Amino acid sequence: MSMSGARETGRRRLVVIGGDAAGMSAASQARRLKGPRELEIVAFERGHFTSYSACGIPYWVGGDVPGRDQLIARTPEEHRARGIDLRLRTEVTGIDVAGGRVRARDVDSGAESWTPYDQLVIATGARPVRPDLPGVDAPGVHGVQTLDDGEALLGTLARTRGRRAVVVGAGYIGVEMAEALIKRGYEVTVVNRAEEPMSTLDPDMGRLVGEAMEGMGITMVNGAEVTGLLTGDDGRVRAVVTRDAEFPADVVVLGIGVRPQTSLAAAAGLPLGSHGGLLTDRAMRVRGHENIWAGGDCVEVLDLVSGQMRHIALGTHANKHGQVIGTNVGGGYATFPGVVGTAVSKICDLEIARTGLREKDARRAGLRFSAVTIESTSRAGYYPGASPMTVKMLAEHRTGRLLGVQIVGREGAGKRVDIAAVALTAGMTVEQMTALDLGYAPPFSPVWDPVLVAARKAAAKVREAGV
Amino acid sequence: MSMSGARETGRRRLVVIGGDAAGMSAASQARRLKGPRELEIVAFERGHFTSYSACGIPYWVGGDVPGRDQLIARTPEEHRARGIDLRLRTEVTGIDVAGGRVRARDVDSGAESWTPYDQLVIATGARPVRPDLPGVDAPGVHGVQTLDDGEALLGTLARTRGRRAVVVGAGYIGVEMAEALIKRGYEVTVVNRAEEPMSTLDPDMGRLVGEAMEGMGITMVNGAEVTGLLTGDDGRVRAVVTRDAEFPADVVVLGIGVRPQTSLAAAAGLPLGSHGGLLTDRAMRVRGHENIWAGGDCVEVLDLVSGQMRHIALGTHANKHGQVIGTNVGGGYATFPGVVGTAVSKICDLEIARTGLREKDARRAGLRFSAVTIESTSRAGYYPGASPMTVKMLAEHRTGRLLGVQIVGREGAGKRVDIAAVALTAGMTVEQMTALDLGYAPPFSPVWDPVLVAARKAAAKVREAGV
Repeated sequence: MSMSGARETGRRRLVVIGGDAAGMSAASQARRLKGPRELEIVAFERGHFTSYSACGIPYWVGGDVPGRDQLIARTPEEHRARGIDLRLRTEVTGIDVAGGRVRARDVDSGAESWTPYDQLVIATGARPVRPDLPGVDAPGVHGVQTLDDGEALLGTLARTRGRRAVVVGAGYIGVEMAEALIKRGYEVTVVNRAEEPMSTLDPDMGRLVGEAMEGMGITMVNGAEVTGLLTGDDGRVRAVVTRDAEFPADVVVLGIGVRPQTSLAAAAGLPLGSHGGLLTDRAMRVRGHENIWAGGDCVEVLDLVSGQMRHIALGTHANKHGQVIGTNVGGGYATFPGVVGTAVSKICDLEIARTGLREKDARRAGLRFSAVTIESTSRAGYYPGASPMTVKMLAEHRTGRLLGVQIVGREGAGKRVDIAAVALTAGMTVEQMTALDLGYAPPFSPVWDPVLVAARKAAAKVREAGV
Repeated sequence: MSMSGARETGRRRLVVIGGDAAGMSAASQARRLKGPRELEIVAFERGHFTSYSACGIPYWVGGDVPGRDQLIARTPEEHRARGIDLRLRTEVTGIDVAGGRVRARDVDSGAESWTPYDQLVIATGARPVRPDLPGVDAPGVHGVQTLDDGEALLGTLARTRGRRAVVVGAGYIGVEMAEALIKRGYEVTVVNRAEEPMSTLDPDMGRLVGEAMEGMGITMVNGAEVTGLLTGDDGRVRAVVTRDAEFPADVVVLGIGVRPQTSLAAAAGLPLGSHGGLLTDRAMRVRGHENIWAGGDCVEVLDLVSGQMRHIALGTHANKHGQVIGTNVGGGYATFPGVVGTAVSKICDLEIARTGLREKDARRAGLRFSAVTIESTSRAGYYPGASPMTVKMLAEHRTGRLLGVQIVGREGAGKRVDIAAVALTAGMTVEQMTALDLGYAPPFSPVWDPVLVAARKAAAKVREAGV
């Protein structure tokens, strides 16, 4: 085995693969706990940027955020100033688990070399699904995963005279990009494979989102599979084609979802789950590997409600993973217990939130349940700005345990999902939730908060089910 | 014992004392479960209105709510249409517990009569503290407890040419009335006995509120005890006097707090707690009395965090109590487990929230704890409208259990307290809270929600305390 200088002097080396949220949070937290004389930290990032908010890209494209640099939480220089040996434009091409080293390639020169590690953090993120369709690589077709993607899309928008945009996919990225393109003055068509947008909601709640999007002037094409993209004489995209129709497009944005980027880990023989993500223990250590850690969009996480593994690409989890890994690598102790599947989004003034299980998740997990849907308002009905809100709630039979909540409404709707997220984490029953002491004053809530109204109805329905 | 006709036919009679939230919620829920052939319901209300939102009065006075009727959730006619024998302007003057009857007096005619009950609900509410000061009853001095109070205050505002208002007290009512009077174009002075406003917060958090109020042009006079009110030649109030100064006033609003209105219950020998409120079991049955129930502002409630009894006058609790009582009276089963002390308010664009224990509450309860305060923002820092927010968090030593949270900020700050309210109810530790899966997207939260940032810091401080 090769022995690095670092090892000889008793100084250990942490190698981090991936310079965004999980990787650099881990590096920063490890550095906070161990100084450079104890721990050398080398971080490889194949792009130009570190620690940026991919979730912010739609708002940058839409013009709410003035520039790319606002999305960068910590620059490469800031990381280096904290004693992290950050190597940009350097792609890790192999992990030698037995030898305890990684092979990295300088993207510009192509030069490759091996770097030994004592501890390894894999934070390779996710890759956007890019369907194998004719025309998908044509100019004018964009993903929105990285800052480079955002730059490229903004370049296209600046150069394009036509104002017709097609967004493929109607999940979080799809609806957020639809908003961004509306703000840029585009006529927006959303082409969506499912029967309703936001398939992270039940279809009845997704329908509310679709209706609101149509009200915003967006053309919704549901139940439509894209079969290809047409290009013009200039080679640029000019239309999106489905089985039944053709949608003219001056620009196309793909928002079909992401998959864990784990080809490197797979090649190294590390354990992957059924969603293709790395499997870790609660300390975020890769299962069966004492000194290899993984976090962020490349791992699977435990769903605390269903007890099953899921893949969720979300910056807030990535940051938590990084914090946990960095603490453990730095000699402390921390765990990531799992998720309840909370997500919140908005399109224009419509707020969309969910946590826990949808009906189909609950069925898949073998649970029997009741579902209720209620209408209420964000504030006391008589208070200015009170806006309607729909809350759907699922509760398990017998136990009465809360299983999930979905909310669609306007201002004040989205973050109410946190009430349910905490209740799910605590394993509360909907009956217990009816007594929750939530903040009440007319500018903030009706005297019965919408979540309490839903809990009362769910509790009654579970009692009626009586099984 | 007198036997009513109702009893002879097997029909039972429920008598309700008090026609606002707790009493009429109880009556309505009992009616939902039992029809008029099974249960007669008689409700006595000494005022003109039923089921109104006292919490909404400041917004009516301030002009946000156009009229009184908006604050009435259900009118006397609506209650009567549901088969409730509602007797307005009828004051209950005695409870004969041994005889199972109440004595009621027609306020207009003065006629008195006895009404027997099988079940009795006491929902007599709270009375505002009205200090025994010279001039306190002069025209131009107003409380804001009832709709009649609101009418009277609006009458004064309409008649008064001068624009100087003095608010005595700087709690919820005080700050909400300060906002209302600013909106009405008054120069507002708030005279407050404590060193900082909002004594339901710790002084360091109250200070932030006071500074913001001064920034709104309100004159804050802290640490000042009112010793009297001066009247002019016309008999109307003209100034508020403290030990050190005199504050000219064309109108004075008293917001010094409320006490349980339990003289009737006390005279009947029913059990009262140290705060003067009725004591009940978890089903809201008055302790030791099988067929007497009490709820709303006239009862004491269990604080689930400190384990001690408190008096909290808040419409959201009153509605829950009424729901529980009505369910039990109607033959079902429900309980009110207690409160964690959540409250939220705003003054202009400043949002103020608290739940759980303050430092002094924790000390009084014999708890050892750490307190931390953090600054964060309501949204991702780069997203438009991200506004600063201060979160204070208390956690118990040894157990690491969350004890309380206080939040002062702008839009999006107040209802975040619900996260802590649920966590307190569930008995979570601050370490557990660091892993909460809260809704994240740039328009809704930084990648670490402010509550998570506080939880991380609190968890670290409790670990450091190591005791």
